[in-house]
Amino acid sequence: MAFSPLVDELVESLRCLPGVGQKTAQRMAFHLLERGRSGGVRLAGALGNAMDGVRRCESCQNFSDTETCGICENPGRNNGTLCVVESPSDLLAIEQSGDYRGGYFVLMGHLSPIDGVGPEEIGVERLINRVVHQGVSEVILATNPTVEGEATAHYIADRLDGKDVLITRLAHGIPVGGELGYVDGFTLTHAFRGRKPLSE
Amino acid sequence: MAFSPLVDELVESLRCLPGVGQKTAQRMAFHLLERGRSGGVRLAGALGNAMDGVRRCESCQNFSDTETCGICENPGRNNGTLCVVESPSDLLAIEQSGDYRGGYFVLMGHLSPIDGVGPEEIGVERLINRVVHQGVSEVILATNPTVEGEATAHYIADRLDGKDVLITRLAHGIPVGGELGYVDGFTLTHAFRGRKPLSE
Repeated sequence: MAFSPLVDELVESLRCLPGVGQKTAQRMAFHLLERGRSGGVRLAGALGNAMDGVRRCESCQNFSDTETCGICENPGRNNGTLCVVESPSDLLAIEQSGDYRGGYFVLMGHLSPIDGVGPEEIGVERLINRVVHQGVSEVILATNPTVEGEATAHYIADRLDGKDVLITRLAHGIPVGGELGYVDGFTLTHAFRGRKPLSE
Repeated sequence: MAFSPLVDELVESLRCLPGVGQKTAQRMAFHLLERGRSGGVRLAGALGNAMDGVRRCESCQNFSDTETCGICENPGRNNGTLCVVESPSDLLAIEQSGDYRGGYFVLMGHLSPIDGVGPEEIGVERLINRVVHQGVSEVILATNPTVEGEATAHYIADRLDGKDVLITRLAHGIPVGGELGYVDGFTLTHAFRGRKPLSE
């Protein structure tokens, strides 16, 4: 290699980032060394702190600096409703829509027996415990509308059966602002089945 | 924000990487926290060390851990020939082709008066000093074939005029393995002008 050990190690380390190959890692390393040293120092610190300090919330499994995360501890939120999502980015998308004010449960994945991810790995027991012992009245299953997401939702619904809790699923339909011509057939079928009277 | 201060700071810091916006930074942060903690710790260390320890080679201006870089100190290389490139990645591309065994001079940019980059910023004086005092017999101008690259090459050639050194420029022509139908007109013109007898 033409470069110094420090640069080589930096390029190699950058490849742990998702979607970053050899060329991109090189470009990133050179950019930081040429024009972004202060950003690089800040990133090094933030990475060290986060890798060391971020854990999972005891209550909802989301990333948190403390034992219980800010959402679970917020007294202004209605913890009688629980929204089950697959990942922190799903939670973020819902939070940014700004309408939902209940609690969350983050599975950090979906059921995938082929990858060795079973109910234990995604914390289904913890979810059921929370539902039973904390007086949850509604569980909104907001897993992704993929095969794995649907399977996970159905599994959780089965496990919650008979637990005196309302189980709901996010509505499928045409995205707001979308054009009918570009919507796939499955979504259109769902939209037809879920049609509502205009007066509602 | 829905997340903890540590995660927020990590996402914000990742945005200093080139081509990384809010969404990508989030994806990278979640990936590292979920599945790549050891990689994250390694990256934090590598970043800290590189930002702190990497400097510019006294002789060729390339990135180096030491005062003089490995290429400049390599006694097996012919320092009578000097290849002038714009960036470390250009140097790397030439090194990987494996054929060139001379020295380098890395400008770390090109002349660009509008951005305040003049001859001083790219180290033209240092280059001339090296040519004059170290018995360089050939300077290969391997700046990029862009307007700025050509201007930089011409400026350096002007400054080296009368210094008893052969000044050459990389050949323009059809890329090996390329198809004529996809080659642009300027390149074809260069290829025609630079045509050679088959017996050579």
